[in-house]
Amino acid sequence: MAKTYEIRDPIYGFIPLDDWERTIVDTPAFQRLRRIRQLAGTNMVYPAANHTRFEHSLGVMHVATQMYNAIVDRAGDFLHKELGYDNAGIARLRKLIRIAGLLHDVGQGPFSHATEDLFPENPRTRKPYRHEDYSSAIVRHLLRVAVEDHQGNRQNYHITAEEVAGFLEGDPVLGTNLLWRDLVVGQLDADRADYLLRDSHHIGVRYGVYDLNRLLVTLTVAPDPVSGAPVIAVEDGGMHVAEALIMARYQMFTQVYFQHTRRAYDYHITEILKELLPGGKFPPPTDETSLREFLAWDDWKVAGLIKEGKGGEHGEVFMARFHDTCVYATSEIPTESELSDLEKVCAQLGDLVSFVDEAEKVWYKSGKEDIPIVLHPGLPNQEVVPLSILSSVVRNLKPVRQRRVYVRRCNKDRALAVVRDALGKQR
Amino acid sequence: MAKTYEIRDPIYGFIPLDDWERTIVDTPAFQRLRRIRQLAGTNMVYPAANHTRFEHSLGVMHVATQMYNAIVDRAGDFLHKELGYDNAGIARLRKLIRIAGLLHDVGQGPFSHATEDLFPENPRTRKPYRHEDYSSAIVRHLLRVAVEDHQGNRQNYHITAEEVAGFLEGDPVLGTNLLWRDLVVGQLDADRADYLLRDSHHIGVRYGVYDLNRLLVTLTVAPDPVSGAPVIAVEDGGMHVAEALIMARYQMFTQVYFQHTRRAYDYHITEILKELLPGGKFPPPTDETSLREFLAWDDWKVAGLIKEGKGGEHGEVFMARFHDTCVYATSEIPTESELSDLEKVCAQLGDLVSFVDEAEKVWYKSGKEDIPIVLHPGLPNQEVVPLSILSSVVRNLKPVRQRRVYVRRCNKDRALAVVRDALGKQR
Amino acid sequence: MAKTYEIRDPIYGFIPLDDWERTIVDTPAFQRLRRIRQLAGTNMVYPAANHTRFEHSLGVMHVATQMYNAIVDRAGDFLHKELGYDNAGIARLRKLIRIAGLLHDVGQGPFSHATEDLFPENPRTRKPYRHEDYSSAIVRHLLRVAVEDHQGNRQNYHITAEEVAGFLEGDPVLGTNLLWRDLVVGQLDADRADYLLRDSHHIGVRYGVYDLNRLLVTLTVAPDPVSGAPVIAVEDGGMHVAEALIMARYQMFTQVYFQHTRRAYDYHITEILKELLPGGKFPPPTDETSLREFLAWDDWKVAGLIKEGKGGEHGEVFMARFHDTCVYATSEIPTESELSDLEKVCAQLGDLVSFVDEAEKVWYKSGKEDIPIVLHPGLPNQEVVPLSILSSVVRNLKPVRQRRVYVRRCNKDRALAVVRDALGKQR
Amino acid sequence: MAKTYEIRDPIYGFIPLDDWERTIVDTPAFQRLRRIRQLAGTNMVYPAANHTRFEHSLGVMHVATQMYNAIVDRAGDFLHKELGYDNAGIARLRKLIRIAGLLHDVGQGPFSHATEDLFPENPRTRKPYRHEDYSSAIVRHLLRVAVEDHQGNRQNYHITAEEVAGFLEGDPVLGTNLLWRDLVVGQLDADRADYLLRDSHHIGVRYGVYDLNRLLVTLTVAPDPVSGAPVIAVEDGGMHVAEALIMARYQMFTQVYFQHTRRAYDYHITEILKELLPGGKFPPPTDETSLREFLAWDDWKVAGLIKEGKGGEHGEVFMARFHDTCVYATSEIPTESELSDLEKVCAQLGDLVSFVDEAEKVWYKSGKEDIPIVLHPGLPNQEVVPLSILSSVVRNLKPVRQRRVYVRRCNKDRALAVVRDALGKQR
Repeated sequence: MAKTYEIRDPIYGFIPLDDWERTIVDTPAFQRLRRIRQLAGTNMVYPAANHTRFEHSLGVMHVATQMYNAIVDRAGDFLHKELGYDNAGIARLRKLIRIAGLLHDVGQGPFSHATEDLFPENPRTRKPYRHEDYSSAIVRHLLRVAVEDHQGNRQNYHITAEEVAGFLEGDPVLGTNLLWRDLVVGQLDADRADYLLRDSHHIGVRYGVYDLNRLLVTLTVAPDPVSGAPVIAVEDGGMHVAEALIMARYQMFTQVYFQHTRRAYDYHITEILKELLPGGKFPPPTDETSLREFLAWDDWKVAGLIKEGKGGEHGEVFMARFHDTCVYATSEIPTESELSDLEKVCAQLGDLVSFVDEAEKVWYKSGKEDIPIVLHPGLPNQEVVPLSILSSVVRNLKPVRQRRVYVRRCNKDRALAVVRDALGKQR
Repeated sequence: MAKTYEIRDPIYGFIPLDDWERTIVDTPAFQRLRRIRQLAGTNMVYPAANHTRFEHSLGVMHVATQMYNAIVDRAGDFLHKELGYDNAGIARLRKLIRIAGLLHDVGQGPFSHATEDLFPENPRTRKPYRHEDYSSAIVRHLLRVAVEDHQGNRQNYHITAEEVAGFLEGDPVLGTNLLWRDLVVGQLDADRADYLLRDSHHIGVRYGVYDLNRLLVTLTVAPDPVSGAPVIAVEDGGMHVAEALIMARYQMFTQVYFQHTRRAYDYHITEILKELLPGGKFPPPTDETSLREFLAWDDWKVAGLIKEGKGGEHGEVFMARFHDTCVYATSEIPTESELSDLEKVCAQLGDLVSFVDEAEKVWYKSGKEDIPIVLHPGLPNQEVVPLSILSSVVRNLKPVRQRRVYVRRCNKDRALAVVRDALGKQR
Repeated sequence: MAKTYEIRDPIYGFIPLDDWERTIVDTPAFQRLRRIRQLAGTNMVYPAANHTRFEHSLGVMHVATQMYNAIVDRAGDFLHKELGYDNAGIARLRKLIRIAGLLHDVGQGPFSHATEDLFPENPRTRKPYRHEDYSSAIVRHLLRVAVEDHQGNRQNYHITAEEVAGFLEGDPVLGTNLLWRDLVVGQLDADRADYLLRDSHHIGVRYGVYDLNRLLVTLTVAPDPVSGAPVIAVEDGGMHVAEALIMARYQMFTQVYFQHTRRAYDYHITEILKELLPGGKFPPPTDETSLREFLAWDDWKVAGLIKEGKGGEHGEVFMARFHDTCVYATSEIPTESELSDLEKVCAQLGDLVSFVDEAEKVWYKSGKEDIPIVLHPGLPNQEVVPLSILSSVVRNLKPVRQRRVYVRRCNKDRALAVVRDALGKQR
Repeated sequence: MAKTYEIRDPIYGFIPLDDWERTIVDTPAFQRLRRIRQLAGTNMVYPAANHTRFEHSLGVMHVATQMYNAIVDRAGDFLHKELGYDNAGIARLRKLIRIAGLLHDVGQGPFSHATEDLFPENPRTRKPYRHEDYSSAIVRHLLRVAVEDHQGNRQNYHITAEEVAGFLEGDPVLGTNLLWRDLVVGQLDADRADYLLRDSHHIGVRYGVYDLNRLLVTLTVAPDPVSGAPVIAVEDGGMHVAEALIMARYQMFTQVYFQHTRRAYDYHITEILKELLPGGKFPPPTDETSLREFLAWDDWKVAGLIKEGKGGEHGEVFMARFHDTCVYATSEIPTESELSDLEKVCAQLGDLVSFVDEAEKVWYKSGKEDIPIVLHPGLPNQEVVPLSILSSVVRNLKPVRQRRVYVRRCNKDRALAVVRDALGKQR
């Protein structure tokens, strides 16, 4: 049996991994995640938010495995009979899910999501690349040897880097195996399952706490009510814990990730990076050379450059903790009148406006991505119904689209006077 | 300064209380709460649910105090200037809230809420008494000496038993002080604040977990938007934690308190009590003698009688853990068609039906009881808006009204066949 | 694959068990454990200490399994090659350990250890029976059908009630399998591993907290340094966590189980039972009839009798929480002079003495029971050394033998005066 | 009343601070602590160990306050009557303790303790400066304005920077107030009280967990048994929790801080710094200019320089996670024979030796620093006895002095062969 290593983790106690997985963990591309904080500048508001993508990535591998094992326990027959997996297939699939979970964030930029605006344009889509594009490109171009050449893989699974990258991208070539991608990229995936608990733990809040144990004993696979294709689903006993996970995400975003000072630091970090990056953009994820250049960017490099005074005006703001300040904000779900106020305020403030922030998030997607709930599982009257039909909670969770106007701190008093003036008549 | 005692508590570490409060805790009426489990027969499903009303009552006193202190910190000026409290008044009010919190459940029957159906009719209201009626009657008739005669009270506060009872009942005689009753009996009260965390802790679930720390730093007092009267309110920064507390309650009810086996035990316990109680009803809360008779009933007495075989058929069921079983259930929010199915099922089952359960709960009350949220607290544009206006989550949280049909366990198979038959056409 | 059930648990999340195990859990003898509090009258001091032997027994089954699985992971080769287990043997052994862990406390009397003094004399040993004797007798006489006749056992394992009882007793007939008894009855067993965490959790203290996760990744099997026989051991990386577990037990005893008021309630409970039991003793564990009589005694029955006023003087003390009070106590490790003071105090107090308590415990046994530590596991210089040689901490942990003199509460002031007088010269 | 701010903290929920304290927190010298990880390279072994001195410093301020408040509650009379504090004095002292707690680590170097070897020699003592010397110098030279000129201080306390620095240094000029220094620098101080819980929380271990709540209700002030001078002490009810805190520290050191890979990173970090620092030493804490130079050094700067390839050989090792490896280690408490083996091993390895590490710590100091335990507090037979007399546990906790021989990873196999050879005869 393969040698097992255990890594300490504050959420799960120990995370076991085998020698092959450890080889992947030991690559420079993965070790770099130790130098990328999970929550960018959130620690400027919540001081204990210093954890990194490294431990999160291990956690995603671990939870995805627990989810998969739970499904195999519950729906083993379905996997064997309907989907045609035998024991070797089930073991191979577990490894594929683990490696994909481990590597899903390997393409994150420094300060995580804060810097996604600086990804160059993808010529195919005419939109900026996403960090997921970097992740799969890194797997293909830089991790092929680590993924493919370990004896543990060669003897037992023959999983290719292409397969892992395709799994992360949702490449239709993977056929049935793609079903499992929802465990890593979906509305109830291991990514969310992990970061909600992990961020809450380190920060010291309860917003992201939900009952993972309960979720794990209710996950299953069932035929989609519309297409009939097999999908990851939740038994009816887990409907409320699925609701709770969605609410936990909503709470974490509105209370932590969208906190007004944190948003200011996201802005400052982006501006600092613009200053530092040649041409103001990251290298594209197109080939080995530019990927290596991309990977050279991590929090340490950026931090070092800020310390050297190369971060420009925003670098100084960052060091002095003299961040921009919000002088007008709409509600989380802006009314028409607030949006018109916003325009008025911006017009009056003119050059005083540093930036206008839009914190936007959809909490639940119905349609194809709706979470299927299995009513009466295993009984003659079994039925699969989308969560959004069953739960008035998720159905009515309105997207947030809060806008905020920020000014330089030194202009705060002047700006507030202007705002009061601009809104004067109504108040 | 008064001597302080500390009682260990798994939720708050230590709960301090003074000598006067301890005298009240030491009365037989309060000590009896050690013999009343918080969650009746829930331990038959969640084995660790063995905690009692005793520690919950201490917890309510403690959280109510924390809430009150938080409000004094935040709205001290308002209390002084608008409400006319001086320092002595603020200290006296703290004590009144503490004693009321401590005693709010002193009138619980054995197995807590499970037995409320057996309270006799209140001739005034033509409805059964509620456990709150017992609590205030016990304070008036049995705890007068403990409340009034302690030197700590006589020298400093002159709080009367009548005042405590009136506070619990919401007696208009109390005037402004009634405002504070919401800390003990309201939509965001110390009762809920405590039991959600405490029940979750002992049972081992996360459903009831919310961020009490955050709630405490956002509680305040503000003028009601409609009436202008002062009300307990939450600053806008706490809006989401108020939402979260309401969701936590919703989760605890749907996942724990309304669990189908637990509901069966509620039924069995009620039937056992009917068997045991003279005339099938508890004595009324009308005078000292019948209150003493009432207080003689606690879990121990009932348990002892069950063990002696005096619990009748349901006592045997209880001991053997051979509870009734649910053979048909509507959704939590029943559709018309489910209700018509229910009728069909009941008609076909006839005498096989043991009982039909209705688990019913409203999650949020708007109108007068809506939680006021203070937008922009302390700023010129301060505004008080009901939570249900601001939060699509609480506004859309539909009441649950799940109906379930139970049969004796020995009839389960027969009954299931009948149900299948009754519903045959549609399935 | 056998159907699995999951039971919620505050320590481990969910405890899974199969249909056979559930059948055993559903027996009246096991369900009775729901009616036996884990910590007797401890709740009179630590109000939240209301948990029962039921959930503890499930927990011991669960931790013993985790320990066993950890050893199989780490020392699988040793088990196969040196001890001759094949996969079926390893699976069968797991079940035996689980069932034994589940049933180890099935013979506890009401109020747990508090009542052990009332077990009748074992004619063979001339000492009182121990609760372990009841456990194994109950397995043999009352649980044979539940253990032996379930299809899950008959088809796969053929484990007999005799084998389980023998395992609990340490019957040499079991040969090599006895090695595993240390997982249920030993210095590092699942019993302690569970109750330290569980008691701490419910009470709300940190005294019993240790790193179970770490223990689990260091447990192994190794040859005893003296006899060469295989023994449960700990790899050197776990030496400090073994120390920590022993310290946690020491802390729990000195801080909780030996707390002076708790000891008073142990005494009162014993006296109440003496009053209630025919002849002042429990029926012996000798045959089915007297075992059934024994099992009729649980906390409920005793509580009911106390409520009916049949508990005598001590029953009244218990209800009124008017417990005896300690007027003189030696240190935990008494000096000669304290012991002589004690004699003096008792002589002077005469009839005022209610009882003299001796709280006595050894924290670590060296000799045959010493925990073996494997230094350099798997390396050429592997060596097995007893923990007491390696750890100055456990080696120097002196046994506690604290003596305390109690009097009736009403005599407290008089008694204290006598004590002051008796000790006057030295103070 | 002064405006209060609350900072989220995973250990205590929220840490309140006032405007004056916030001004100090906002200084560049204090904000720099956000860029100094609490545990240097520990995250290379325990990945979640990414927290910083910033939140620890806030935590020390907070716990020191809780300790102080607990003592005032318990020993208020003593403070008034024996020590002559009135209410203003008690409030002023609280602030002094808070500020000192907040600033005690402001002089830490990058990567915390890992770099203490690089402090220059103090000409007075002929030994290297300690980080405490930097802390007090920074308070004196750089924080004078922040400490002294805030209106909150000027109006109420008149605390000087000199006084804070003197408090940290233990300057005898402070007279009685020095007694309180033990709350920040002592065997039971807020520093340890905080880091044990905080490090355990973030890393995910239980080693450092102890019962802070209990400690807080037993802290007091009492006359020293020898000198009669007032000292911070613990009531007898807290003796075991004091023991537990000392054991928790012992566990954290042996299990975490002295872990062999972590020690390798300490070495590599020191070597990197030697490479980077002009002259291989930090600037001395002698004047404003060199203190500013010192403060420019933080984890960010060092990290940035490593990323730029300026960290030399050890910088590369660090980035590649290719740390030196231990090929021989004595026990924690080395025997004579192990020490002689060590010499042999080093001699044979010759140039292969990278470095020899000595992990050394004393767990408990008796003599002047022994923790005083108050037996029978408040009773006629009150007595103050040193903990080391009462507790066989702390008395027998032997100092650790483990030596380990490390080699470059690439030489591991060769070195292990040499070691085997060198020790061959005995094995």
